[in-house]
Amino acid sequence: MSRIGVFGGMGPAATVDFMDKLVRLTPAKRDQEHLPVVVASFPHVHDRSRAILGVGPDPLPQLLAGIDFLNEAMVGVIAIPCNSSHHWYAQMSARAKAPILHIADACVAAIAAGTEKVAIFATRGALASGFYQRALQARGLGWLVPPEEGAQGNVDDCIRYVKAGELAEGSASLDEALKWARSQRAGAVIMGCTEIPIAAREATVQGLQLVDSSLELARATVNHALERGWNQWDS
Amino acid sequence: MSRIGVFGGMGPAATVDFMDKLVRLTPAKRDQEHLPVVVASFPHVHDRSRAILGVGPDPLPQLLAGIDFLNEAMVGVIAIPCNSSHHWYAQMSARAKAPILHIADACVAAIAAGTEKVAIFATRGALASGFYQRALQARGLGWLVPPEEGAQGNVDDCIRYVKAGELAEGSASLDEALKWARSQRAGAVIMGCTEIPIAAREATVQGLQLVDSSLELARATVNHALERGWNQWDS
Repeated sequence: MSRIGVFGGMGPAATVDFMDKLVRLTPAKRDQEHLPVVVASFPHVHDRSRAILGVGPDPLPQLLAGIDFLNEAMVGVIAIPCNSSHHWYAQMSARAKAPILHIADACVAAIAAGTEKVAIFATRGALASGFYQRALQARGLGWLVPPEEGAQGNVDDCIRYVKAGELAEGSASLDEALKWARSQRAGAVIMGCTEIPIAAREATVQGLQLVDSSLELARATVNHALERGWNQWDS
Repeated sequence: MSRIGVFGGMGPAATVDFMDKLVRLTPAKRDQEHLPVVVASFPHVHDRSRAILGVGPDPLPQLLAGIDFLNEAMVGVIAIPCNSSHHWYAQMSARAKAPILHIADACVAAIAAGTEKVAIFATRGALASGFYQRALQARGLGWLVPPEEGAQGNVDDCIRYVKAGELAEGSASLDEALKWARSQRAGAVIMGCTEIPIAAREATVQGLQLVDSSLELARATVNHALERGWNQWDS
């Protein structure tokens, strides 16, 4: 019998949202039918986006410390509900005893058939890292990113507001970014930062597939665990 | 530098709700100002209420295994967002290297001055254990519990519905129980099972102080950590 490992805290509200999705996606009528989860919520990890952009300290030692913690905790799979941290996916995977599910792979698998252009909403660091662009390209999908002097500012604001607990302001910023995506005739938007789906609860722009990176990672995680029977206890 | 330990999974949705409260109660504008938390969400622990009532297997070995896990995780304080498990508070405290904050103490401290009669909504097991009655009596407060053949059935239904993810039905059951409490001229109701506050989001009965055991435990936990500066990282 094994358990899910969540490396969270990046940010803390996004981790709660991810755990909520794990619980809701698990078919269970009573506690004992749910999945065991260990969460390391370590919010002190240095800003991932700033580090990728070369303007902040390197978080890799802290990221590896989180993986070490989950190795000790004997988890059977690892989910990291923070997109930007996947810039260091290779290094974390090399350190982890359990497989780490890649958040971009989970998102790209969810894009509706027939979609031509996918807009990527993420931190400037995650966009500079390029892992979403590569995952989409590998599946033959076109992509676009918000202009740095334009809609990317709305995405940045959205993320910062959610981290500060200001959800109404975050939703308004997201709405502006979604208007841009629609104007560019994007068929889908990857909400490739786990703060964005929290703001999207109140978003009002229609006519786009919104791919929730937190939800898709949660789905992949629950499926991984259910397929292996981690909810089946001897009682 | 230390971290909060949460022994959860009893039930899983209540644990998510508790973590959400930890995040919201922490004054922070960015990730790095939040508190580090380790969560052991182990939903397979045998039903606490049934064990207290003598009709189910003993969860104590599983409860102690959870404490052992948090001991290994080097946590500085432990919160257990499950009221009924506090029946085994003494045994868990003896095993834990860190202090365990008692959920009933946190609730009783929150009751408004001048309150005469406090209704206790909890599992039948927690009521049979009597730790809420003793905590109230120690502060000179009167208490009452729902009749076994009457409103206690509504409380039982509320808890079971929330554990099954059926929130609307849970709220309706809670409303019935709250009507009983008002008819008995209770001044406050302790929602002494961590599923009940989740149903209370939609509860409509007014005129009673509703004491949320999950919120009060979260408040005590955050205060414990902030007083010790666990959100202050060297950067």
